[in-house]
Amino acid sequence: MIVVLTGGTGGAKFVDGLRQVVPQEQLTIVVNTGDDLRWWGLSVSPDIDSILYVLSGLLSKERGWGVQTDTFFCLQAMAQYGEPAWFKIGDRDLATHLLRSQLIADRKNLSEATDEIARRLGIAARIFPMSNDRVETRIRTPLGELGFEEYFVKRRFQDDVLSVRFAGAERAQPAPGVIEAILSADAVILAPSNPVTSIGPILAIPQIRHALRETSAEVIAVSPIIGEAAVSGPAANLMSAMGLPVSIAGVAQAYQDFLAVLVVDTSDFAIAKDLEHSRLRVRCTNIMMRTAQEKLNLAREVLSQVACEVTAHSGTERS
Amino acid sequence: MIVVLTGGTGGAKFVDGLRQVVPQEQLTIVVNTGDDLRWWGLSVSPDIDSILYVLSGLLSKERGWGVQTDTFFCLQAMAQYGEPAWFKIGDRDLATHLLRSQLIADRKNLSEATDEIARRLGIAARIFPMSNDRVETRIRTPLGELGFEEYFVKRRFQDDVLSVRFAGAERAQPAPGVIEAILSADAVILAPSNPVTSIGPILAIPQIRHALRETSAEVIAVSPIIGEAAVSGPAANLMSAMGLPVSIAGVAQAYQDFLAVLVVDTSDFAIAKDLEHSRLRVRCTNIMMRTAQEKLNLAREVLSQVACEVTAHSGTERS
Repeated sequence: MIVVLTGGTGGAKFVDGLRQVVPQEQLTIVVNTGDDLRWWGLSVSPDIDSILYVLSGLLSKERGWGVQTDTFFCLQAMAQYGEPAWFKIGDRDLATHLLRSQLIADRKNLSEATDEIARRLGIAARIFPMSNDRVETRIRTPLGELGFEEYFVKRRFQDDVLSVRFAGAERAQPAPGVIEAILSADAVILAPSNPVTSIGPILAIPQIRHALRETSAEVIAVSPIIGEAAVSGPAANLMSAMGLPVSIAGVAQAYQDFLAVLVVDTSDFAIAKDLEHSRLRVRCTNIMMRTAQEKLNLAREVLSQVACEVTAHSGTERS
Repeated sequence: MIVVLTGGTGGAKFVDGLRQVVPQEQLTIVVNTGDDLRWWGLSVSPDIDSILYVLSGLLSKERGWGVQTDTFFCLQAMAQYGEPAWFKIGDRDLATHLLRSQLIADRKNLSEATDEIARRLGIAARIFPMSNDRVETRIRTPLGELGFEEYFVKRRFQDDVLSVRFAGAERAQPAPGVIEAILSADAVILAPSNPVTSIGPILAIPQIRHALRETSAEVIAVSPIIGEAAVSGPAANLMSAMGLPVSIAGVAQAYQDFLAVLVVDTSDFAIAKDLEHSRLRVRCTNIMMRTAQEKLNLAREVLSQVACEVTAHSGTERS
């Protein structure tokens, strides 16, 4: 079993490659819920939705979020009503939020609701929210503290980031199955998601970080940083705000207490070797995912690290 | 001030004519809520919506319900999720239900929510739900008891109707303003809506029926029946089930304790005169509303009765 920790955008792209090369039955995806929000009175889980949509083949590849060929007529009507419309919910996408909200109103928790939606979409992979407790990623900016989607979507991550916190994380319990999945995994992959606001909230739950340190599975991360910039989105600003160097060194530092393998871009070859030490291997490959082929190649490259480890691991058990 | 008691379909058509000839500020519309339902977890008030849409010019004239040129992509996605899809909610229409549900979640009652939606649609007429208490039209059929929309939309009113009841009506309070509006009206018009399941639930609230008997305004009804058939929908079956003749005589009987003027189709001329007595005048005109012009003509014809009464009424006061 392969466990993937992920956020929405970059992580969903990576999962898109992965699902082409691993049977979904062998995938457990643990998803950031720090961006979850109430929107139009509905329960919206943006990163879970991206994973649901990518695993069911519904994700819009053009936008990287939402449902392909979706329309936005309800959104237009809400805007005409004077309701907030900066968070773009498509008409087909809306069905997911309506269904989730009903399941939650029927006293299902987020795990159960996610499971049910995944089942109805014909998804065979297991998708776990990181927690059924509310954890909220809060971005402190000169304007005041913003919710993540407010910072990211509404303000288009234009504001300086002073600090980031994960409200509720300290007391949050991992969702059922998360710890067991990590401890019994053949490999744990951290998707090339933003280390601060996509992977960060997951790691902010103490039991999850602890499990990553304890698991016998090797933990492999794919860098979302190439050179001194994020492949996409506000990761660079957010890493700076957290005191992390904006480079693969910052990624390694964010995950230093449990990371075994860091997969970085070939263009970072020169500094990659300097990062290696007795507990960390760094592997260089093309980590850009501009095409289906590049996604596939990256998934295969990462899995080749896993396969190697799984073999070694089995060998150890046999000896 | 003109008060109109109405349901959705035929009533909305009539209101469409009325709004062309009366300033909206002079209209108070009291709307049936017996068909209201929870749908996809949202608060849906089908008849209120029809009135909101017709007064804001948004109503689909082709369908007679919902928003013109609306799309149904969310509905398709809900159907793909295996959720019920027989009640057709369009993507733009959905915004109304989302907004209403949020207002109600924010502890507004249906009157306040309706007011707020009407304001945002730029509607100057007052729209009152008949009650903020839950009144549910229940149709007993050989299959068992059905909610109205289940009987009407899902089963396309194909079932025999054994009886009709308005659960909750006996204890329901009229919504704020309804009684005052009826008592102080210059005229009260019963729209050509189904007398059993559109006007019936309104009349089933004891204080409303009492106010119609007490008001000094004349009460004028437009027949939804021509000859021995309903202009549209299941009114004929429902009237039979209630022991009413399916004819203008049945309409007169349903409203006998307060009706002053019944407007019927010219084709019913022969029996119209027989219905008249000291407290009931019957007026013949074309009551079909196939075109904008026919709607306008019917509204004018009904208003000519009102104008006559308003004059007479003022005259009485002056004397």
